[in-house]
Amino acid sequence: MTEAKIRLHVDHPLGDGQAVPLSEGQAHYLTGVMRLAAGAAVLLFNGRDGEWRARLTIASRRGAVVSCEVQTRALRMPPDLWLLFAPIKKARTDFIVEKAVELGVRRILPVQTRHTNSDRIRQDRLQAHALEAAEQCGATYVPEVAELAPLDRVLADWSQDRRLYWCDEAAAGQPASLAPANGPAAILIGPEGGFSVDEAARLRANPAVLPLSLGPRILRADTAAVAAITLWQASCGDWRGGA
Amino acid sequence: MTEAKIRLHVDHPLGDGQAVPLSEGQAHYLTGVMRLAAGAAVLLFNGRDGEWRARLTIASRRGAVVSCEVQTRALRMPPDLWLLFAPIKKARTDFIVEKAVELGVRRILPVQTRHTNSDRIRQDRLQAHALEAAEQCGATYVPEVAELAPLDRVLADWSQDRRLYWCDEAAAGQPASLAPANGPAAILIGPEGGFSVDEAARLRANPAVLPLSLGPRILRADTAAVAAITLWQASCGDWRGGA
Repeated sequence: MTEAKIRLHVDHPLGDGQAVPLSEGQAHYLTGVMRLAAGAAVLLFNGRDGEWRARLTIASRRGAVVSCEVQTRALRMPPDLWLLFAPIKKARTDFIVEKAVELGVRRILPVQTRHTNSDRIRQDRLQAHALEAAEQCGATYVPEVAELAPLDRVLADWSQDRRLYWCDEAAAGQPASLAPANGPAAILIGPEGGFSVDEAARLRANPAVLPLSLGPRILRADTAAVAAITLWQASCGDWRGGA
Repeated sequence: MTEAKIRLHVDHPLGDGQAVPLSEGQAHYLTGVMRLAAGAAVLLFNGRDGEWRARLTIASRRGAVVSCEVQTRALRMPPDLWLLFAPIKKARTDFIVEKAVELGVRRILPVQTRHTNSDRIRQDRLQAHALEAAEQCGATYVPEVAELAPLDRVLADWSQDRRLYWCDEAAAGQPASLAPANGPAAILIGPEGGFSVDEAARLRANPAVLPLSLGPRILRADTAAVAAITLWQASCGDWRGGA
């Protein structure tokens, strides 16, 4: 039995014996780039039905169809953690999205703050980036990337049962610890210039908001995102074990 | 008083009234690129004497000299933590070095393992990258980047009083926790292909080695490095507070 190494995300339902047509890009990748022929095995996931090993049944220039054989992994939802961040330079924003998928978050929400550099993002590009990260890291779920929204509006609509860990630079030097807790949560990473005085006041006044220290040094936004998700996963998420 | 925003690393001693000649590259950067003139303030650090505000006294095409005015930050050594990692692609290796400096490690040791992709690194380039990261993140100390060394040799010379946290993929699903501990430590991140059977056996047999889980998902090496340093800093390092 060939070991399947290529993982592809598809929108199609997956199940026993299910035939799945691949996209033109995927067909080209498998047959043109990877030189796979009919009979080769690939892994599929769609974010709902877990991961399936499938075999290439039709492989031509016109398209490719694979047939599901066996479920290789059950669906594993990441914990109910959201990541809110102010978009930064393209490469570092891509990096934050990639790392959030690997570390395990359920939603990624770019937010616009007073000092956010960019006032627009390419949501479709970031969503595609999240999907590619999921293909590569073995995730069976692809976090949704939301459209850019103003932080004020996001906070105005905030549900009080979702704790919001705010990586507050003013907390530097405080212990970097999160009390173990269950339930929905979110992490907020600020822009390079930090939050404005108004924004900080609104965050402090919100009962769902908990400040989180990330040590005594200044971290870039992308580093802060990875560090904060790591601390949350180890204390409150599915890194606590028993997987 | 002008607020100094530019931070430069110099080799020269720093102290009250000390005149410090800048390198040709730094002189060009300050006068040619940033258009600073005599009287402008910059921040200097050398990894030994903390951070000093200095004023540009000579600024010409031939060179620049600054004069130290006041210490703005005391030397802050990162905890005695080493990062051992198997070099990966250039951009991701650079990333690991940058993040290790920001998060706070004292030495960075590229190690060659059975499945390491590259058998050489540009140590000088990585050291320069560490220095630049220190300039940008406000660190007063620049971690040393060692030359690439075979993992076997590094382990053979290992001092048993330095705990070595091994990010073992076989530990996936175990709790991602580090018992609080004082004393020297190191983190070992494997190559993309993982460790060989021999290497894993040698690691397991070494009493200084402690396996560390990083959750149930597969992390890239660069993500694993950031996550592991974060967990160590929060449990054993200077993120425990009281800074």
